Amino acid sequence: MPSEFDLIRRHFTRPAAHTDLTVGDDAALMRPQPGMQLAVSTDLLVAGTHFFADTAPRDLGWKTLAVNLSDLAAMGATPRWAVLGLALPDVDDDWLSAFSAGLFDCASHYGVDLVGGDTTRGPLTLSITILGEVPVGEAITRAGGQPGDDLWVSGQPGLAALGLNALRHKCALNPEGLARCLHALQHPVPRVELGLALRGIASAMLDVSDGLIGDLGHLLERSGCGAVIDLPALPLAELLITGADETLARRCLLGGGDDYELLFSAPPDHRDTLLQHSRKLDLPLTRIGLLTADHRQLLLREADGRLLPPLISGYDHFA
Amino acid sequence: MPSEFDLIRRHFTRPAAHTDLTVGDDAALMRPQPGMQLAVSTDLLVAGTHFFADTAPRDLGWKTLAVNLSDLAAMGATPRWAVLGLALPDVDDDWLSAFSAGLFDCASHYGVDLVGGDTTRGPLTLSITILGEVPVGEAITRAGGQPGDDLWVSGQPGLAALGLNALRHKCALNPEGLARCLHALQHPVPRVELGLALRGIASAMLDVSDGLIGDLGHLLERSGCGAVIDLPALPLAELLITGADETLARRCLLGGGDDYELLFSAPPDHRDTLLQHSRKLDLPLTRIGLLTADHRQLLLREADGRLLPPLISGYDHFA
Repeated sequence: MPSEFDLIRRHFTRPAAHTDLTVGDDAALMRPQPGMQLAVSTDLLVAGTHFFADTAPRDLGWKTLAVNLSDLAAMGATPRWAVLGLALPDVDDDWLSAFSAGLFDCASHYGVDLVGGDTTRGPLTLSITILGEVPVGEAITRAGGQPGDDLWVSGQPGLAALGLNALRHKCALNPEGLARCLHALQHPVPRVELGLALRGIASAMLDVSDGLIGDLGHLLERSGCGAVIDLPALPLAELLITGADETLARRCLLGGGDDYELLFSAPPDHRDTLLQHSRKLDLPLTRIGLLTADHRQLLLREADGRLLPPLISGYDHFA
Repeated sequence: MPSEFDLIRRHFTRPAAHTDLTVGDDAALMRPQPGMQLAVSTDLLVAGTHFFADTAPRDLGWKTLAVNLSDLAAMGATPRWAVLGLALPDVDDDWLSAFSAGLFDCASHYGVDLVGGDTTRGPLTLSITILGEVPVGEAITRAGGQPGDDLWVSGQPGLAALGLNALRHKCALNPEGLARCLHALQHPVPRVELGLALRGIASAMLDVSDGLIGDLGHLLERSGCGAVIDLPALPLAELLITGADETLARRCLLGGGDDYELLFSAPPDHRDTLLQHSRKLDLPLTRIGLLTADHRQLLLREADGRLLPPLISGYDHFA
């Protein structure tokens, strides 16, 4: 069996673009640019909890990094460096080869250097810490939302959750819909470019990893606001095209995580700018409601104007 | 059961000393000091592989951070920030309380802000990524050793390995020896101050996490050197006081990891300075041999001058 060191060398050592010292010493060394704040985020992904152990390793490699990139995107930060912790039940060369290919696909697409890691035997577990940069004072936190700000979401939230439901045989989708939903689940696209474009525009932002309603709750708590979501404004039509029934589609849109779309607030005078960004990035941006002064009060507005409390909360990894 | 968010808030949120935005957003924000390189290292620790699942949680909290601090110490870097990934089979408030107490004991002792994390359900697994700073160009890598440099080791390597042998009922130690070895195993002291003192002195350095002989091999490979270790110079006497037999003590000294001592090379004209640092830090520094020009050739020199190849290699988490 090849040693841990051989493994690391063979699968995870690639030339680094902007790192002084990469994989292979006690620590990596890099030089943040002057005038920048460092943005750091970490995720621990456990087989059986966050992904199926038999997930195609190339998809898993992509997604492991992509979900972390999404956290930086949600701050408006430029991703720069990542480190990887990897526990494996055994050494499977083919698996490692495909996993690292997926990981480096994502890393090179977004200009990330993998600068360090740790591999060990254990239940299949992935740990990523990602580092990015953002000009001092320009990061977009969860805390800046103001009553009266519009509430926006990127892309098509709900696709990944529909895909998961289909994988679990809890719904039937048409073949094209199934393919689209599975792709969304297995190959999420972190909204890095959008995050950067929203500096100076979004007042508060986070990524939807645990469900739109649940994650919105975090934004409201931090911003000290409430919100009203306009149900007719939700981008439901695209979900219905997959063949999902409306109740499930709505539930996936409001409660499903795993799409890694950005949810953000912005003053109404940025609407035109936002629609220009949407066209330029070829990425739908949907205005789904607004922030209110009712601290942490989240309401859904029906087409007829009735206001209802949401019945769906966020996904909790310990619930 | 309390939610993931409650857990994080209750046990892992403490005031940060030098961080702009800490736990609770998509990413933490911090400002590295001008003129500094960032040093980053990560470890993934799995119950059953790296520690016993029933390890006292307070010790485990300390050790989880300490072993990462040791990586920064081995670069001559000042530790600054850490993020924690934590997978738990279930939510045990007492366990979390003790674990976080141990972690923060270590963090506050070494001036580290815990700036982010991720908790989830899963087999007990700990992931730490640590960030430190070192003036540009002053980091001590594994690569700078030169033939003729002395080879030094800090503290008392072998104690932790003896402790592990005793826990596994593979040896008997006297009561004081057992207490000392178990303490070394459960509460390793990262040599942060020594690492900083060795800037400008050590030509190459790493921490002994996988065994002195095995880790020395990495230094030799990176430095393009060989080495001769003088067996009579090894700090064996302190190990024998524990009641361990000489063969096991020598094996633990040369092959045992987990003490997190620093192993480094330095030109001979630094001997006096190093002994001054040893006194000032109240930490033994032992000159155990020297680097040679015989690339990757590692030999042990007996008292009578005979040269032998070592029979012990490093610990490999996949071997």
